[in-house]
Amino acid sequence: MRVGVLTGGGDCPGLNAVIRGIVRKGVQEYGYEFTGFRDGWRGPLENRAVRLDIPAVRGILPRGGTILGSSRTNPLKIENGIRRIKETLAKEEVGALIAIGGEDTLGVAARLSDEYGVPVVGVPKTIDNDLSATDYTFGFDTAVGIATEAIDRLHTTAESHMRVLVVEVMGRHAGWIALHSGLAGGANVILIPEQRFDIEQVCAWVTSRFRASYAPIVVVAEGAMPKDGQMVVKDESLDSFGHVRLSGVGEWLAKEIERRTGKEARTTVLGHVQRGGTPSAFDRWLATRFGLHAIDAVRDRDFGKMVALRGTDIVRVPIAEATARLKTVDPALYEEVGVFFG
Amino acid sequence: MRVGVLTGGGDCPGLNAVIRGIVRKGVQEYGYEFTGFRDGWRGPLENRAVRLDIPAVRGILPRGGTILGSSRTNPLKIENGIRRIKETLAKEEVGALIAIGGEDTLGVAARLSDEYGVPVVGVPKTIDNDLSATDYTFGFDTAVGIATEAIDRLHTTAESHMRVLVVEVMGRHAGWIALHSGLAGGANVILIPEQRFDIEQVCAWVTSRFRASYAPIVVVAEGAMPKDGQMVVKDESLDSFGHVRLSGVGEWLAKEIERRTGKEARTTVLGHVQRGGTPSAFDRWLATRFGLHAIDAVRDRDFGKMVALRGTDIVRVPIAEATARLKTVDPALYEEVGVFFG
Amino acid sequence: MRVGVLTGGGDCPGLNAVIRGIVRKGVQEYGYEFTGFRDGWRGPLENRAVRLDIPAVRGILPRGGTILGSSRTNPLKIENGIRRIKETLAKEEVGALIAIGGEDTLGVAARLSDEYGVPVVGVPKTIDNDLSATDYTFGFDTAVGIATEAIDRLHTTAESHMRVLVVEVMGRHAGWIALHSGLAGGANVILIPEQRFDIEQVCAWVTSRFRASYAPIVVVAEGAMPKDGQMVVKDESLDSFGHVRLSGVGEWLAKEIERRTGKEARTTVLGHVQRGGTPSAFDRWLATRFGLHAIDAVRDRDFGKMVALRGTDIVRVPIAEATARLKTVDPALYEEVGVFFG
Amino acid sequence: MRVGVLTGGGDCPGLNAVIRGIVRKGVQEYGYEFTGFRDGWRGPLENRAVRLDIPAVRGILPRGGTILGSSRTNPLKIENGIRRIKETLAKEEVGALIAIGGEDTLGVAARLSDEYGVPVVGVPKTIDNDLSATDYTFGFDTAVGIATEAIDRLHTTAESHMRVLVVEVMGRHAGWIALHSGLAGGANVILIPEQRFDIEQVCAWVTSRFRASYAPIVVVAEGAMPKDGQMVVKDESLDSFGHVRLSGVGEWLAKEIERRTGKEARTTVLGHVQRGGTPSAFDRWLATRFGLHAIDAVRDRDFGKMVALRGTDIVRVPIAEATARLKTVDPALYEEVGVFFG
Repeated sequence: MRVGVLTGGGDCPGLNAVIRGIVRKGVQEYGYEFTGFRDGWRGPLENRAVRLDIPAVRGILPRGGTILGSSRTNPLKIENGIRRIKETLAKEEVGALIAIGGEDTLGVAARLSDEYGVPVVGVPKTIDNDLSATDYTFGFDTAVGIATEAIDRLHTTAESHMRVLVVEVMGRHAGWIALHSGLAGGANVILIPEQRFDIEQVCAWVTSRFRASYAPIVVVAEGAMPKDGQMVVKDESLDSFGHVRLSGVGEWLAKEIERRTGKEARTTVLGHVQRGGTPSAFDRWLATRFGLHAIDAVRDRDFGKMVALRGTDIVRVPIAEATARLKTVDPALYEEVGVFFG
Repeated sequence: MRVGVLTGGGDCPGLNAVIRGIVRKGVQEYGYEFTGFRDGWRGPLENRAVRLDIPAVRGILPRGGTILGSSRTNPLKIENGIRRIKETLAKEEVGALIAIGGEDTLGVAARLSDEYGVPVVGVPKTIDNDLSATDYTFGFDTAVGIATEAIDRLHTTAESHMRVLVVEVMGRHAGWIALHSGLAGGANVILIPEQRFDIEQVCAWVTSRFRASYAPIVVVAEGAMPKDGQMVVKDESLDSFGHVRLSGVGEWLAKEIERRTGKEARTTVLGHVQRGGTPSAFDRWLATRFGLHAIDAVRDRDFGKMVALRGTDIVRVPIAEATARLKTVDPALYEEVGVFFG
Repeated sequence: MRVGVLTGGGDCPGLNAVIRGIVRKGVQEYGYEFTGFRDGWRGPLENRAVRLDIPAVRGILPRGGTILGSSRTNPLKIENGIRRIKETLAKEEVGALIAIGGEDTLGVAARLSDEYGVPVVGVPKTIDNDLSATDYTFGFDTAVGIATEAIDRLHTTAESHMRVLVVEVMGRHAGWIALHSGLAGGANVILIPEQRFDIEQVCAWVTSRFRASYAPIVVVAEGAMPKDGQMVVKDESLDSFGHVRLSGVGEWLAKEIERRTGKEARTTVLGHVQRGGTPSAFDRWLATRFGLHAIDAVRDRDFGKMVALRGTDIVRVPIAEATARLKTVDPALYEEVGVFFG
Repeated sequence: MRVGVLTGGGDCPGLNAVIRGIVRKGVQEYGYEFTGFRDGWRGPLENRAVRLDIPAVRGILPRGGTILGSSRTNPLKIENGIRRIKETLAKEEVGALIAIGGEDTLGVAARLSDEYGVPVVGVPKTIDNDLSATDYTFGFDTAVGIATEAIDRLHTTAESHMRVLVVEVMGRHAGWIALHSGLAGGANVILIPEQRFDIEQVCAWVTSRFRASYAPIVVVAEGAMPKDGQMVVKDESLDSFGHVRLSGVGEWLAKEIERRTGKEARTTVLGHVQRGGTPSAFDRWLATRFGLHAIDAVRDRDFGKMVALRGTDIVRVPIAEATARLKTVDPALYEEVGVFFG
């Protein structure tokens, strides 16, 4: 059998490890052949196919990014998109497709499978860790590690100087990276998109921290927002994917804290640094196992399913169910972590 | 209430994060006071007590080791050990004890609780990840990360030269570190204590790897052993804790591979480097949450229990049950990873 | 003899290594005693003295920041400042003073020595590497390493996506960090304060890079400025030290590139992350040797001098000469590196 | 003009950065074409040529190893070796050759240039930093950084436990890596090949360190040797390059310290981990500049020269002079560092 593989959506360390796991096991154990489709769904749409064999996946395990390229192309929004995909699969004699991606990519995969009978297996990917049905997604641990190391370094300044240090991390809709890196880095305030923050409360924590003769470190998810009436002035340009670009909550916070407390504040904006480079050992383990289990699902012809982590096991769940809702930070967990605020 | 805390057994990154979690929540939320006992069970035996308050746990989150010191003292093997511990707890007015440690430390904790009615809560600690009842223990992720980074660096040599590279990692009785770092590092052979290895098979993998014009990397757990008749000449001195010291499976392997295949081999022995230094973000997260939940168990007077990780939740399990058997690598998992051998 | 030690100015990894080197050699080899003055020149001004002995410097080698604290207090601008310093030194029976700091701190040291006969030895410190008379200053290598690692990670995104990636690094008046990290990280454009940049040229490089089907990485020093008429809209608030705060050249560049080229751009602002945390091995080596040689200068009563690196040797130069002018990037060196632009 | 490039000898991070620097500047500024010879001198001997152009050097800056491969083949020891090299150069129309390598490779280059009139430019490479005429060689800073990080991690165990920790690092004939990493890591004993050590003195330092209630860390270069009569039992097999393989001074030391002091000792042997993986920012800077200046020397037809670092400048020196003697650790420098022993 010939199996197609594609990667969709944003950068995420571990994508190559998934591809390698799929191909190594598929070729060696099941004798499959592989076609890689380039640039997400654009690959099968435009028949951008590359050969995927064992030499092609050699040495890619520690490399960030994806050897297949990616895009945010959505075939459901393109005329005859589904038909063209089915034609490409037929023409290339691809008997099953493994789609590695986030909410959008898997949403397409679910519909292809459920409504159009395309034999698809999904592999979940989101650096923000906000996909339901899996304990963790690969890339998240790497991002948390990078953010934590940055926070660690800021403690030196916090010890020596009297400045507020604000760190803006990824997370538009879910605060997992902020929560994990903020806790691991010993931040004094963590602000997440799930809960609008009160700038007065933030300033109270900041002020109380200074009384302990130590400067506060504030970790803020890029999607965090103050309460109504404390509104951030946003730069609401649209990015090339049509998403509203909310820039600058970190810079806004620093200025607002300075204005309200009279303390100097400095901002670090990590940006894409968090989603690039070599994956952590945990992410390589998880991504590789996702790959191995995805090809097992193909062999079992268990289509319409997505691999997922439950504890230390890899399980299969319906793709549609997995993407049904965003996995956000539970208020109880946020409160648990809140013992370290101030 | 006054709560005692102690740490027992070997070094493990994250111990300080547990202590900090316990004290921060215990003081702030429940108004408890804390006594730290120094050097494991020797602390309550000899009443080596130190004050543990919020200033005492400031800044310790990223630091390896334990501010309380450790030892392998076993009060069950000491005359009147239990009685002396109960006396110390009474004298210091300690109403509950949190014991952070591995199989031995928790074994004592279980008996103190179950047979002598001492109010104990356990926190599992083993860098080898070989404790049942918890998905992971803190320190393990750090060790895997360090070993993986070392393996990553060896790939350069593997690409350029024609040498076999052997890496000896921790793991006397369980091969978790070897398995995870070997997979994450893209090793070509992984040898674990759970399964005696056949040196002929190892040499066959080594030889086949050279045919792909790439040198093999062999990851071996310190406790891995060849089949009978292929015996390692061991240095069976006893260390100061009375454990048999099995040194040198890495060096033995390198020499044996050279002898059998005619290829040069070089060994890296990471040793204690794997258990020192700052914990990874994952380990800080896990260790901190273990601390927060351990003090919750004290508040609930849920003694005789140990905190444990199940998926993303922290749960409580009976200490005795948790230490009943070693968690070793499942043969099915070893076989899953075996697709990358050779 | 009793020797005073103080650290002035901003954070810089390696300060503690200098202090340790001074104290270890001073106590062990020369039998000196030490008084640490806290918070830069404020220490001798207000007689904020702490004891510095061998236990006090134990374990500080790998730690960022300074155990003596720092400030930007300038005694020359304070009424009777010099007299008060001399009184403190007399009262504390301090026979020589070692001042570790940058342009400002050493400027005071030079005048104290040359005009007021205070026996001072200087140790140069600037994370920006912009002090004349020494090949390198400690802290710089650490900052370059951190910035380079960030740029490394951005290459993943540059490979996969079509976004311009802008990284703003430290350097108000000298572009050393931008130049070294930009070269080491393989940046496509490096902008430094020494040479006003032409935004049209930057956009031309950006556009040409995209034609090589790879996204450009632009490294910009915080003090870099466009040519007249392409002016950055600055936020010219004064910081607490009276310095003009020029924020945002990175963010400005990203927006201007987007506007002019139609390509999306994203910014990373590393900020204080660059000056905190553990020093690199090179910085620990350099800082320790600076400390060892500073105390030798005291023993030789060679006052008014500053230690400096020349090749692999530590030499002594007049403090006044060393701080006479800023060491900026030579146009020829900038041109040498320019071969990698575009 | 067509320029040949080859890399000889052992692995060393930065080789690819040199190649990239040569090719980028040579093509862009001087319009040269390049031929890469594979596997050191074996390349021109056997005419193993590959094309080197700008796409060929893309992305190699951060990668360890060498894209040209390496070997220890010595054409002076091969019949008609020189004639065959000259024939290859003539046949391939190579007008100048850049040889990147250590003592052996450069020794050949010097003779080719001086005695046979081959137009050669040298680039010095030795991870051990033991080449005269240059302040530093690339790869050394990376190796020191890796060793220092390992020592850092061992301090945790040194604080918590009562074990002697021995770290064996590279350095057969010169102790630079041991000296720099030992100083930067805060080791208590540093042993180098330049000075035979007295095991009794080592044990005295070890014992005195324990009295400060802290365990000692001993850094030993692989080529360090005890005084006569305290001889290491060596494994004197020859490696494939005909070098005597002295293994195990680290393991020997640990056992001897245990035997003499009664304290447990543990060994870490870093091995090839020190010479692989991504180069440090400093090494990338140095290696790139070596490449840029080597191609300038070709353009100037300044053959028989080697590029070298003097302070912050790249200069040219006669190859023969540069390889005339090994650069070993000066006794005065070793004594300077000795203040931290014990």
